[in-house]
Amino acid sequence: LNISPLYSTFLRSKVCFTGMFGISYLPHFETARRLVNSGVLGDIRLVTAQKSYKLRKRAPFYSSRELYGGTIPWVAIHAIDWIYSLCNVDFKSVLASHSTVGNHDNGMLESSSLMMFDCGMGISASVNADFFRPYGAPTHDDDRIRIAGTEGVLEVMGGKVSLITPDTNFTNIPLVNPSHELFEEFCMEICGEGKCRVTAKETFDVTRIALIARESADLSKQMEIKL
Amino acid sequence: LNISPLYSTFLRSKVCFTGMFGISYLPHFETARRLVNSGVLGDIRLVTAQKSYKLRKRAPFYSSRELYGGTIPWVAIHAIDWIYSLCNVDFKSVLASHSTVGNHDNGMLESSSLMMFDCGMGISASVNADFFRPYGAPTHDDDRIRIAGTEGVLEVMGGKVSLITPDTNFTNIPLVNPSHELFEEFCMEICGEGKCRVTAKETFDVTRIALIARESADLSKQMEIKL
Repeated sequence: LNISPLYSTFLRSKVCFTGMFGISYLPHFETARRLVNSGVLGDIRLVTAQKSYKLRKRAPFYSSRELYGGTIPWVAIHAIDWIYSLCNVDFKSVLASHSTVGNHDNGMLESSSLMMFDCGMGISASVNADFFRPYGAPTHDDDRIRIAGTEGVLEVMGGKVSLITPDTNFTNIPLVNPSHELFEEFCMEICGEGKCRVTAKETFDVTRIALIARESADLSKQMEIKL
Repeated sequence: LNISPLYSTFLRSKVCFTGMFGISYLPHFETARRLVNSGVLGDIRLVTAQKSYKLRKRAPFYSSRELYGGTIPWVAIHAIDWIYSLCNVDFKSVLASHSTVGNHDNGMLESSSLMMFDCGMGISASVNADFFRPYGAPTHDDDRIRIAGTEGVLEVMGGKVSLITPDTNFTNIPLVNPSHELFEEFCMEICGEGKCRVTAKETFDVTRIALIARESADLSKQMEIKL
């Protein structure tokens, strides 16, 4: 699936464009963003991220690749976006896998997926995404990211942020809210009153990465990523 | 590095042989083993495991590939063994990466590594291993495994075991000790009084997997695993 013509059309237009990466505006991710941007981690070297959802009763369109798109571009894409936007690393290549086994009769919906990204300069990242979060779990989702740098390790897990550095071990950092949420920022951009943090470029890049990862999983083959 | 001649020699011999996979005898892993063996997870579909150590002052031999062997066969191998022995999955292929960046002048010692395993039948597993655990952390190691199955998710983290199923959410399961520890079992096998759980076959298999993963990382190339 080649989305370059869509991006070219966007570039020739004057429209405002963003992707629905609203999870990254939640307080735990906003807090993580500010800490990473402070440089406290040193050089980021290894990133692992997770999406896990309860399957629940799904509408029929989830069963169709044509309508749903796949678990990598529907679910894992958020974790790819965290790596892209929080860690500011490149994406050079991907090896991915996915499987529909255990999807409780949801057709083509992949119940599990795993991706490994070469981010250049020896930096690596992985994303695991699944619909195996059991109904006994306290929340619908189990979003996580662990960012290991030369000077510290930051984690988002269970809606909490932790940071360990050579001198400190903060396990439950007070969360901060972003100044504006995604939809609010997007409306402000339309009104000429500001810029949406999630740019069109980020949206197209992350979508491209997810689609290449899906193809990698379909073909069981490592794929180059060119943005 | 071909270790088949070593294994052939072992098979022709009458010696007792085991690998130093003693971590898997710790109470949290023993408890996880019994839960997995009970079948409560259903079919295992997606496994992610982690090793993270403080770097600390390392002896000079860690700087040498010839003497140390590499972070994948020295450190990550334990996580590979958990996947092998706890989850009882196959290992069909691996893509791995590793990097020495941030190793604080420890020569060839890789400070980070990432592996993705195709375990056949759409089952996937990853291992991330690093020396980036900051000195501010409360423990030397940060061992983890998350096993997602069709009926439940089990995790070992921070020396604790959690299990979520459709009906329940156990976050801190009482730990059990194995009947015997690794060295004790090995001595019992030598004395003809029992069998060591970590067999020579497991030891050679897991070592082979780690060496193939190291080669995959050295060559930046997905490699087939034949055991």
